[in-house]
Amino acid sequence: MPHIALPDGLPGITGPFAFRPETAAPMRALAEFLLRGPNTLSSADREIIATYTSSQNDCHFCQTSHGAAAAHHLGGPSELAGNIALIAAIKLDFESAPISSRLKALLNIAGHVQQGGKSVTAEDIARARTQGATDTEIHDTVLIAATFCMYNRYVDGLATWAPPEPEAYISMGARMAHQGYVAAPVQAQP
Amino acid sequence: MPHIALPDGLPGITGPFAFRPETAAPMRALAEFLLRGPNTLSSADREIIATYTSSQNDCHFCQTSHGAAAAHHLGGPSELAGNIALIAAIKLDFESAPISSRLKALLNIAGHVQQGGKSVTAEDIARARTQGATDTEIHDTVLIAATFCMYNRYVDGLATWAPPEPEAYISMGARMAHQGYVAAPVQAQP
Repeated sequence: MPHIALPDGLPGITGPFAFRPETAAPMRALAEFLLRGPNTLSSADREIIATYTSSQNDCHFCQTSHGAAAAHHLGGPSELAGNIALIAAIKLDFESAPISSRLKALLNIAGHVQQGGKSVTAEDIARARTQGATDTEIHDTVLIAATFCMYNRYVDGLATWAPPEPEAYISMGARMAHQGYVAAPVQAQP
Repeated sequence: MPHIALPDGLPGITGPFAFRPETAAPMRALAEFLLRGPNTLSSADREIIATYTSSQNDCHFCQTSHGAAAAHHLGGPSELAGNIALIAAIKLDFESAPISSRLKALLNIAGHVQQGGKSVTAEDIARARTQGATDTEIHDTVLIAATFCMYNRYVDGLATWAPPEPEAYISMGARMAHQGYVAAPVQAQP
């Protein structure tokens, strides 16, 4: 049961977003730009950074919904099961997953941001630059990881409700990937 | 030296805000509402929650600047030294500091949010309710602590520059308290 009286049937972060629209607006705008705005990093890569950070924070709702959004960005319905399996492999051990060396270097930075800002080293940054990452890509990686340290704590610090069934996250991820974060992406359950 | 090429002379978070105005806008709006918007919690109490969270994250720039903002909210120039000392006492051990039992209960929640969302217990919430905290006050406490887990990681994850001299934070805190977060509060140093 949530720690405060949130509207019924709204999963994860959408409950506190409905409870406090004044803070939901900038938090939605920030996610929209960071995950779907114009960028040399693909939305798939950015959602993978968000998903990995959320898994390191042990946030079930965020890692499952953003993992599904990443899978939808990576391909169509026939590839969905394979892409969901890829996201699971990345969360388990991204260094051995079949992804680019550049994305591995960015996930290494994100993992250190999750531990704390001072955990990011000059070596982490040098590794990303060696793989061709630009200053803006490094900035956005740090900020995506930092923002998910906020979203994850917001979702779990209020003990929000999350759907138990995996299917709910597949359709949620499709809405997040294709409709985005600014319009309310999820309707209350009956 | 910052990990990426940030504009010279802009302290702490104002460097990356200038580097990436697209993300600065919602991040500034979020801080403005949470710390200075209409609320049954005073701005002083909200800045103290931000300061305490930043001290737990060992973020020098954020804890010093928001601590100064809290001190400015608490009183005028003649009381400033005493209020700065109060903020230091709160960071050291808020349970024994001369503040209200309600603020202590909210700082206890903020400290658990800093550790991770799942660290917030039903007992933490019950303690705050016993001290008269409302659902909105509990929500805002959780979100202020969560947002500073983002701001702190953004500031330190990019290894931003911060002024060494304490006087810089006194004037910075006055601007944050009285002019706020939406207009750029800090000018580049010559």
